[in-house]
Amino acid sequence: MNIKGRAYRTIWVEADGWSVGIIDQTRLPHELTFVTLRTLEDAALAIRSMQVRGAPLIGVAAAYGMCLALRADASDEALDVARAHLAKQRPTAVNLRWALEEMRAAVRNLPRGERVAAAYRRAGEMADADVATNRAIGGHGVDLIRAVAAGKKPGERVNVLTHCNAGWLACVDIGTATAPIYAAHEAGAPLHVWVDETRPRNQGAALTAYELGAHGVPHTIIVDNAGGHLMQQGLVDLCIVGADRVTAGGDAANKIGTYLKALAAKDNGVPFYVAFPYSTIDWTIADGRDIPIEERGADEVLKMNGRTKDGRVVEVEIAAPGSPARNDAFDVTPGRLITGLITERGVCAASAEGLRGLYPA
Amino acid sequence: MNIKGRAYRTIWVEADGWSVGIIDQTRLPHELTFVTLRTLEDAALAIRSMQVRGAPLIGVAAAYGMCLALRADASDEALDVARAHLAKQRPTAVNLRWALEEMRAAVRNLPRGERVAAAYRRAGEMADADVATNRAIGGHGVDLIRAVAAGKKPGERVNVLTHCNAGWLACVDIGTATAPIYAAHEAGAPLHVWVDETRPRNQGAALTAYELGAHGVPHTIIVDNAGGHLMQQGLVDLCIVGADRVTAGGDAANKIGTYLKALAAKDNGVPFYVAFPYSTIDWTIADGRDIPIEERGADEVLKMNGRTKDGRVVEVEIAAPGSPARNDAFDVTPGRLITGLITERGVCAASAEGLRGLYPA
Repeated sequence: MNIKGRAYRTIWVEADGWSVGIIDQTRLPHELTFVTLRTLEDAALAIRSMQVRGAPLIGVAAAYGMCLALRADASDEALDVARAHLAKQRPTAVNLRWALEEMRAAVRNLPRGERVAAAYRRAGEMADADVATNRAIGGHGVDLIRAVAAGKKPGERVNVLTHCNAGWLACVDIGTATAPIYAAHEAGAPLHVWVDETRPRNQGAALTAYELGAHGVPHTIIVDNAGGHLMQQGLVDLCIVGADRVTAGGDAANKIGTYLKALAAKDNGVPFYVAFPYSTIDWTIADGRDIPIEERGADEVLKMNGRTKDGRVVEVEIAAPGSPARNDAFDVTPGRLITGLITERGVCAASAEGLRGLYPA
Repeated sequence: MNIKGRAYRTIWVEADGWSVGIIDQTRLPHELTFVTLRTLEDAALAIRSMQVRGAPLIGVAAAYGMCLALRADASDEALDVARAHLAKQRPTAVNLRWALEEMRAAVRNLPRGERVAAAYRRAGEMADADVATNRAIGGHGVDLIRAVAAGKKPGERVNVLTHCNAGWLACVDIGTATAPIYAAHEAGAPLHVWVDETRPRNQGAALTAYELGAHGVPHTIIVDNAGGHLMQQGLVDLCIVGADRVTAGGDAANKIGTYLKALAAKDNGVPFYVAFPYSTIDWTIADGRDIPIEERGADEVLKMNGRTKDGRVVEVEIAAPGSPARNDAFDVTPGRLITGLITERGVCAASAEGLRGLYPA
């Protein structure tokens, strides 16, 4: 999507034909900077430090990490080491494991001399497929927004609430939860997005607001505490969020706090949708309670990056000195609270039947 | 309660016998500093800028503001002007209006020459009454914690979740929601408090964590998004929050986000209690939807104060530049989501019948 009128993706192969460029998302929204990945460890660090984040983008970044690893050593042993190393960087996102399996399948039966080229080819396909998938999600999801718009008076806008960043910055382009939003915006629908700040890493206020603003979509930042109140006031027409892992039974692990918004949506009769691609589905797990939840460092809660009046980006301590913090990165929203799942194949119920209807075994 | 072993209240009359000392809560947790109020406008500013905050403390601060106003001009006209000026500083807290009415009643039928002394007397009584009231809330609430503790294995701690700061810093001393916690802690119950950060002003991470830490109560800071997940994991035994206004029907306006925690508590079978004194009840309103909700400035969402590595407290911009924000300060939790109300008279159902049982008309 656009930043200041110029189109970007979040990840690309550089002009040298092998090193991998990314937007450093830890520096947004204060600075638009780029990082070049040249080794397996560069890719692992980018994933772990969340220079790249968002389930789909993590998958593609891991795929390119495999390319970089194979370039250094194309042996079976190196392949296994690279897979294991990348897989452990983020435990909740199932796309990471999926992408690594895809990469392994793409190269395992090839002679070593052909593996690097095949890996780059497959990683490039995965990146392009992500964009096509998200476009399809947008095509299905936009109908939900249109249906709400049809019930509005002329000039009234459709208010969509989203949590965290499941935008183009979480993907290669377009985004998952934002795909219906961008599609509706491009179709000229009067639209406004409530952007949850999304503590502790503020991906909503820092990334979703940034990308919506850069692309010209009307939006307002709210604290994570506010969404329930806005729903009580009738100020939210529908919620659309992304997911880091969706079980075969239709439960969705997503950024911590998603569950609270789903509860509020249910309590106020507001439709709650989860948008994601096929690669986010974990067919091996039926019950969301079995999804491993990543616990991250306390500093993400106790400290914050921000820009001072004189333009420097600094880290500040924001909590009572000496108090400990706990930082679970995700929670699980049970399918019973989800109105529908939006995938590249269409919209279905958040249930085993719903998902199997779209993806027959 | 104690800070570094020394006992404090949040508000007091200085040694000169008339000026009013407060802890400047906008500087916590980074600095413990004090402000002296000498005029009506000093008191109004302290309330508006949240140097003092928390419904009970706002009431007492307003009472002392009336004293300072009367000291400058003890006429009926000045009394009315001061009341109106103080009342408009924070629209949601009903204690503010209650305290102003009490002060008016205490002085209106007196000759001007006796009004100042009577005002200070009544304000002092209100401060002492707040402490006694909170001690009584603690006495009733501690039984709820004891009942949970009785069901635990030896050594297992009772996990209480609280939102915002309804601690001694929100009152004159002891606190409302924290009163049962301090009482249980003093009785030696193994206790641990989950402290919601409470965006946008971080009263949980900045004030509740500060006062619990200073008094030696085990606690952990979590982001506002996390409480639902912790309840799903069985890590919360009960929730206790304060209130800024409780309707005659048992609905409770409290810091934005309280409603989301109440929904999660209901969904997970976790008891959810609201603790407050008589002065928080608005007998003129039955339905929480009729409570006016204060909307505050966008900067509270978009910027944050924190301490840099070199010890300076600075304001930093934390959101995407140019993105707007909305900042509703409170939300309303319907009585149907509240397990019980804890007041100085006991614990009752969150309903008109429950409240009238404790406070017969």
